[in-house]
Amino acid sequence: MNAGILAVGSELLGTERLDTNSLLLTKALQQYGVEVLRKVVVRDVEREISEEIRRMAEELTLVLVTGGLGPTTDDRTRPAAAKALARPLARDEDLLQGLQAKFLQWGLTMPVSNSCQADVIEGAEVLVNPRGTAPGMKIEHRDCTVFLFPGVPSELEGLIRTGLEPWLASRTAGKKVETRILRIACMSESALEDSLGPAYEEFDSTSISILASPGDIQVHVTATGTLEERRSILDAMEQKVRELVGDSLYATGAKSSLEGRVAELLMASGETLATAESCTAGLLAERLTRIAGSSDYFLGGVVVYTNELKERLLGVSKESLVNHGAVSREVVVEMAEAVARRLESDFGVGISGIAGPDGGTEDKPVGTVHVAVSHLGDKTTHRELHLPGGRQRVRWLASQWALDTLRRRLL
Amino acid sequence: MNAGILAVGSELLGTERLDTNSLLLTKALQQYGVEVLRKVVVRDVEREISEEIRRMAEELTLVLVTGGLGPTTDDRTRPAAAKALARPLARDEDLLQGLQAKFLQWGLTMPVSNSCQADVIEGAEVLVNPRGTAPGMKIEHRDCTVFLFPGVPSELEGLIRTGLEPWLASRTAGKKVETRILRIACMSESALEDSLGPAYEEFDSTSISILASPGDIQVHVTATGTLEERRSILDAMEQKVRELVGDSLYATGAKSSLEGRVAELLMASGETLATAESCTAGLLAERLTRIAGSSDYFLGGVVVYTNELKERLLGVSKESLVNHGAVSREVVVEMAEAVARRLESDFGVGISGIAGPDGGTEDKPVGTVHVAVSHLGDKTTHRELHLPGGRQRVRWLASQWALDTLRRRLL
Repeated sequence: MNAGILAVGSELLGTERLDTNSLLLTKALQQYGVEVLRKVVVRDVEREISEEIRRMAEELTLVLVTGGLGPTTDDRTRPAAAKALARPLARDEDLLQGLQAKFLQWGLTMPVSNSCQADVIEGAEVLVNPRGTAPGMKIEHRDCTVFLFPGVPSELEGLIRTGLEPWLASRTAGKKVETRILRIACMSESALEDSLGPAYEEFDSTSISILASPGDIQVHVTATGTLEERRSILDAMEQKVRELVGDSLYATGAKSSLEGRVAELLMASGETLATAESCTAGLLAERLTRIAGSSDYFLGGVVVYTNELKERLLGVSKESLVNHGAVSREVVVEMAEAVARRLESDFGVGISGIAGPDGGTEDKPVGTVHVAVSHLGDKTTHRELHLPGGRQRVRWLASQWALDTLRRRLL
Repeated sequence: MNAGILAVGSELLGTERLDTNSLLLTKALQQYGVEVLRKVVVRDVEREISEEIRRMAEELTLVLVTGGLGPTTDDRTRPAAAKALARPLARDEDLLQGLQAKFLQWGLTMPVSNSCQADVIEGAEVLVNPRGTAPGMKIEHRDCTVFLFPGVPSELEGLIRTGLEPWLASRTAGKKVETRILRIACMSESALEDSLGPAYEEFDSTSISILASPGDIQVHVTATGTLEERRSILDAMEQKVRELVGDSLYATGAKSSLEGRVAELLMASGETLATAESCTAGLLAERLTRIAGSSDYFLGGVVVYTNELKERLLGVSKESLVNHGAVSREVVVEMAEAVARRLESDFGVGISGIAGPDGGTEDKPVGTVHVAVSHLGDKTTHRELHLPGGRQRVRWLASQWALDTLRRRLL
């Protein structure tokens, strides 16, 4: 099977919005091994919608249309599709009554304009849309199947689950492509590539792909088959990657985050944390508290942007500041230990660095960052970093490395 | 003139990437009043690229193609366009020597595969691409003009400026559509709509549009004409909006930010600032320090996530905490004044609130936030807010209102 995706809507041809619905559809299609061959966006013009549907239906086995199913006069997908497939469009009385009942439930009388949402193309299967008033449609037409979906993303998502995916599953005998996302912190893309060599050899190299963002890389491992088949391959692949990258793999899943993983570990250990930040200026504290319930482990912190405050709020020694500078091992170690002592937490984190654009020197260029993690009664961990990028990138990476250093201490 | 945009690249048909180049092109086209009628994404397949170019060239007056101009075998746009327009493709010796010289400059020998980037369609004007190895092309073909652009966004941006925009300008006799962006903080979309009523009456209502994001609304005002004509209309529109919304208009331009405006005002006044945050937990300090040079006015801050730290680090009175609760006027006023006193700054900001999802009560539901701004020797300003949305949204809006309260104190 191969597919074309048509997005209908003049608003998708301006400078502010892109057709992101196609990503939702592509995700569902990929799971069943269906390749998307073309994506098109057209205006709310019946002739243009109709011609594109006709063309796709001639050339492809699956045509997915989103948008243009609303009740207004510029919603033209229903008549356009009927014309493209040369089938009549007729009002479905049951559907009309269902629509009227829906409005009554909301305490409203159905506007006359909504009646057209009960128009059905001959031979179409109606796809019930509990989240809105526009039902979807599925039309088997010669060697092609055409789906019409509403353009509102939440409504589309519902119909993908209840209308598209079951149909795809029935056509592919339960075989499915599944991707598992492995999350790697603070490793360069090239170092990761090198480490993964044996995995590329053991498994089909096209089943492993790398998606890099600053300080956080996703390794996507993919397998095809029945539930049992693909899970066993994915488990083996994950196991292999874990062997190769060790503790750098911090979590699985697209929604995981380094702060979330640190939260889990702190909640499990029952210990508390305080932060002392200079160049990140609150970013680390802000990330730690994105997690609901973070007050269980995060006590608070200080942002000591000036040297004077490093001395006055934390008692960092003037000697260290003068002899080694604010961006040094000595100072961040004192910051981490002092904030934990003063705020009475188990862990303390200190960060100091040069985020730029100014402030760099030959010895300590922009991107030089020191991070320290202290733990009650133990030796304090220190890292010196040389981070690439502009001001925001350096600050982000500094917070990422601080979280990762903390995570490794918690393991 | 009307246009079609074709993006070439199999990677744009997966689940991870969208064709964002079309937004850059659309922005340039809109300035000259050219409407985009369709956007298409196709695979790196010569026949599919060629058919779409041929179809667009028949139906539209302007065809913009991005991608597929690289040196590898799956870069097929050059031969595909030649075929679509039924013109021969021939190697341009001057262009080839230029390419070889470019590689020499980089200290490299040009790989043989790059030679194809010197292939030019008969009758095409070559568009020099200083940022990469793939030149663009412009072909006048019957009633249509076809542009071929590289797909790398930075290279495309350069060629839009040097190749597309001058051509559009020459076709529209210097008349241009220009948009000015007016930034409004902490006003609801509906309140803004109501305020703008007289502006909609005085000017063409379609020339004013609203783009809302949480706590920050952009009013786009648009005018058409020669430079002088449109500037005078835009000035009048801006003046009118300023009259209607007053101090809520904090800046102009897409790149402005509330923290940037606060930075300007603090730098102008030469005063300093310290922050005391609870629910935002560092977000305000982090935003204030996104600005390069923020150490001129920002001294530092404390994140007092627990009540105990509010007492211990800031000296907030137990009485206020017990009688009024941590989320109250009394406590944020004490926080703002104490942090300014202890860190010896001119301004102090205090924020305390309930970001959720838990912690809400009947009296103080999730979204209740108190903000205070103190200034040496003056009365402290206080605001009680009831903010909508989830945890991240409430925290963001709280930081936005705090910045706006500070900005208004600085005016």
